[in-house]
Amino acid sequence: MIDISDRVPKSLADRIVSAEVAAEYFKDGMTIGASGFTPSGYPKAVPLAIAERMKKSPFKVNIWTGASTGPELDGTLAEANGIKQRLPYQTNTPLRNQINSGVVDYIDMHLSEVAQQSREGFLGKIDVALVEAVAITAEGIIPSTSVGNTPSYVQSADVVIVEVNTSQPMELVGMHDIYIPLDPPNRLPIPITKAGDRIGTHFIPCPLEKIKYIVPCDITDKTRALAPLDDASRKMGAFTVELLKKELAAGRMPKGLLPLQSGVGNVANAVIAGFVNSDFTDLEVYTEVIQDGMFDLADAGKLKFASGTAFSPSPEGLQRFYKDIDKYKKIMMLRPQEISNNPEVVRRLGVIAMNTAIEVDIYGNVNSTHVTGTKMMNGIGGSGDFARNAYLTIFYTTSEAKGGKISSIVPFCAHIDHGAHDVDVVITEQGVADLRGKCPRERALEIINNCAHPDYRPILLDYYNRALAATKGAQTPHLLDEALSFHQRFLATGSMQK
Amino acid sequence: MIDISDRVPKSLADRIVSAEVAAEYFKDGMTIGASGFTPSGYPKAVPLAIAERMKKSPFKVNIWTGASTGPELDGTLAEANGIKQRLPYQTNTPLRNQINSGVVDYIDMHLSEVAQQSREGFLGKIDVALVEAVAITAEGIIPSTSVGNTPSYVQSADVVIVEVNTSQPMELVGMHDIYIPLDPPNRLPIPITKAGDRIGTHFIPCPLEKIKYIVPCDITDKTRALAPLDDASRKMGAFTVELLKKELAAGRMPKGLLPLQSGVGNVANAVIAGFVNSDFTDLEVYTEVIQDGMFDLADAGKLKFASGTAFSPSPEGLQRFYKDIDKYKKIMMLRPQEISNNPEVVRRLGVIAMNTAIEVDIYGNVNSTHVTGTKMMNGIGGSGDFARNAYLTIFYTTSEAKGGKISSIVPFCAHIDHGAHDVDVVITEQGVADLRGKCPRERALEIINNCAHPDYRPILLDYYNRALAATKGAQTPHLLDEALSFHQRFLATGSMQK
Repeated sequence: MIDISDRVPKSLADRIVSAEVAAEYFKDGMTIGASGFTPSGYPKAVPLAIAERMKKSPFKVNIWTGASTGPELDGTLAEANGIKQRLPYQTNTPLRNQINSGVVDYIDMHLSEVAQQSREGFLGKIDVALVEAVAITAEGIIPSTSVGNTPSYVQSADVVIVEVNTSQPMELVGMHDIYIPLDPPNRLPIPITKAGDRIGTHFIPCPLEKIKYIVPCDITDKTRALAPLDDASRKMGAFTVELLKKELAAGRMPKGLLPLQSGVGNVANAVIAGFVNSDFTDLEVYTEVIQDGMFDLADAGKLKFASGTAFSPSPEGLQRFYKDIDKYKKIMMLRPQEISNNPEVVRRLGVIAMNTAIEVDIYGNVNSTHVTGTKMMNGIGGSGDFARNAYLTIFYTTSEAKGGKISSIVPFCAHIDHGAHDVDVVITEQGVADLRGKCPRERALEIINNCAHPDYRPILLDYYNRALAATKGAQTPHLLDEALSFHQRFLATGSMQK
Repeated sequence: MIDISDRVPKSLADRIVSAEVAAEYFKDGMTIGASGFTPSGYPKAVPLAIAERMKKSPFKVNIWTGASTGPELDGTLAEANGIKQRLPYQTNTPLRNQINSGVVDYIDMHLSEVAQQSREGFLGKIDVALVEAVAITAEGIIPSTSVGNTPSYVQSADVVIVEVNTSQPMELVGMHDIYIPLDPPNRLPIPITKAGDRIGTHFIPCPLEKIKYIVPCDITDKTRALAPLDDASRKMGAFTVELLKKELAAGRMPKGLLPLQSGVGNVANAVIAGFVNSDFTDLEVYTEVIQDGMFDLADAGKLKFASGTAFSPSPEGLQRFYKDIDKYKKIMMLRPQEISNNPEVVRRLGVIAMNTAIEVDIYGNVNSTHVTGTKMMNGIGGSGDFARNAYLTIFYTTSEAKGGKISSIVPFCAHIDHGAHDVDVVITEQGVADLRGKCPRERALEIINNCAHPDYRPILLDYYNRALAATKGAQTPHLLDEALSFHQRFLATGSMQK
């Protein structure tokens, strides 16, 4: 068995068991509050062992996490037909397929609200917290590469099972800042006024008697590869830097900008990469996940501080992070997602929120979740926590997808996650639509002319002009018969093009 | 001329002029930052005089306010064809008609964001602040029956014109709590932890040299009459009390509940009335507008404190308030709307947000603004500030409108202001749909069965079942060809019924 004796108090030595023994604890219908946010810091050995049990004798559990996790948790349990309910976010293909065939009940939630709603009992009761740790100390649990909702799940659960993962370096100790707010009516201000403010403990408080089993594990985080920077992403990054320079010149932004938040994925990472080659310095990041671009910023000497709830680097990025962890440790910190995404802090700090959209309509409404309005892609994630409360809210999408068969600018989104009230700026590789202080009729022209792909501009303009005429200049002109016609055409012909 | 000598410092006596003289200051293209939130505390004499000038020699101005105002401002200027741009909210019929015929550029905004965006310069420059006051003192301006965005408009404008209104009693002095947060990166926590916490000054700070003119006025607030409580409203009020009792019994709510927020209008007022006859005591209110129901709560001895940004009583309610103002003053306070609606405070206090919808779709998405998706009704108001960040978010609508020709529960909203992620509970006179912890397929049945009118239940269920079959159990089943069919049928036949 893997030796974890230097990572666990001696008094708990008798609770160290194999994953198979720990897996016996799980029963049909249980709700598991798991660690993990992106494929970082999620439990691995125990889920694999649970899945083995499920294959022999089928049963199902509910899985609550921070956000998405890696294949050992979401993928393996989905493939074992073992997930009944899943919240609040996922990105796993087998699981997504089960969600979209009605097998799994998937509750897509604002990521900042999950801990609160679970503590309050809005979602039911957590039976067991299953968490990956770097180590256990007399005071509690040291999380690994993500914090997510683990502090609240550990607090709410009667039973805690910990995987101590030796692939996670002990140098992670001290990188976390754990703060669980009191619930109303006793909640106090969250005392963060700068991205780097430390307000909590470096461990998750947990009475050791709650820890039922400790499972040694050395399976690594299965972080996702990043696509190489493409031309479209590079353009969106450059447009962002240009926009923020203009804001600075207009006196609407301080010299070191305001704290940056960027969503998860290739486009978000490319946007951050745009800052590496810019003149901006002393950048602060108050975000959800710390991706490769943040390490680039740090290495370029441009990063003052990055606060997030998870490290979510590429496999190469993870090695780079582990190698220079002592350097990064000075300017990076992980918090519970309730704090990294907290509306209070986001509004106070004046975060610049940069998130990706599946599609944007001509008035600036955003679909972040549903392909053709019905199939779940991933989930809203933290985009709603940031978009509503940010200083400046930017949404990104390439103007086209599937080789031009899909226009990401549509007359009417087939699903709406972010109303136009929340969207300040839309950026595609075509250009920038600045929607601030514009009424819907002005927004439509700004979006179609600046952001839509030239192949789709004429049919979008035609739609808008006919809607304007038919409604005699309504606040938000639409032709209800044709509002969803782009999507209907795609479903019927495989292309949104006429 | 009306005598305001006891309400204005002697040193400013030479700035007292008639409304006609003050009106001469306004030029084509100017942006006016006006006081007013609901038909309370808005300037009256000067807008009337500006409209007279416009009739003789046409020109247009931009009007930024707190929210809606009374006929002397929005109505008269709209009728004089004098409004180019209007933000962030309105409820005036002539103005609404001009918005929906493309004459007025209307920017519908989250009400908590307006002051910040105007200070930051996102919306352009304010040329003059035009504000109603109870009095002017050496320190600044004492607002009247609303605060709205006045503090920030006064701060941003180079020129301030004040209407001192003698119909507003001097007893209002001391009822306001004025706090303007610093903008990022210097913003500090807003130190409110209870609805009644006083954090600012009782006046709007204003260097007296900025005050160009002072105009005496005695025109009263044209507050709106409330419809008598009808059966549907009474039922929705009773359902609310029942729901909150259950929350209390389940340990999800403290004994005195959590601070209540209720939207503007008849249904909201009726819901508050439901609390008057309930067992709940020591109620706190952290809301936008203080309506008649709050006075009823106070008179019944059940109100601990009510914080808002405006008094918005009926004409009778206003007289009742004026009569016992010293009593109400002890337990009521008006703040800037940036504070009354602030996401930070709403989340911290754990507000119970109760707002009305135009329509709700079967998955819980809410349309608060657009009739048949194109025509602006009023605007999103503060509903987004509260719904996203509240402890518990409830939306109300009667299940039918126009004598059954409209179903307020539809397959797909023709406009979406609040995504289903923000909606915990939907209440109609038919019943309660509790959406917490439910996936979209579960939500659809909950909403159709509990909230839709029985006349529409079969066709909604038929839509849902066919969508479920056609999408083979997608996360959010829809038939894109029929998603907007209820609205299309209404436009074609005058009824959503088949």
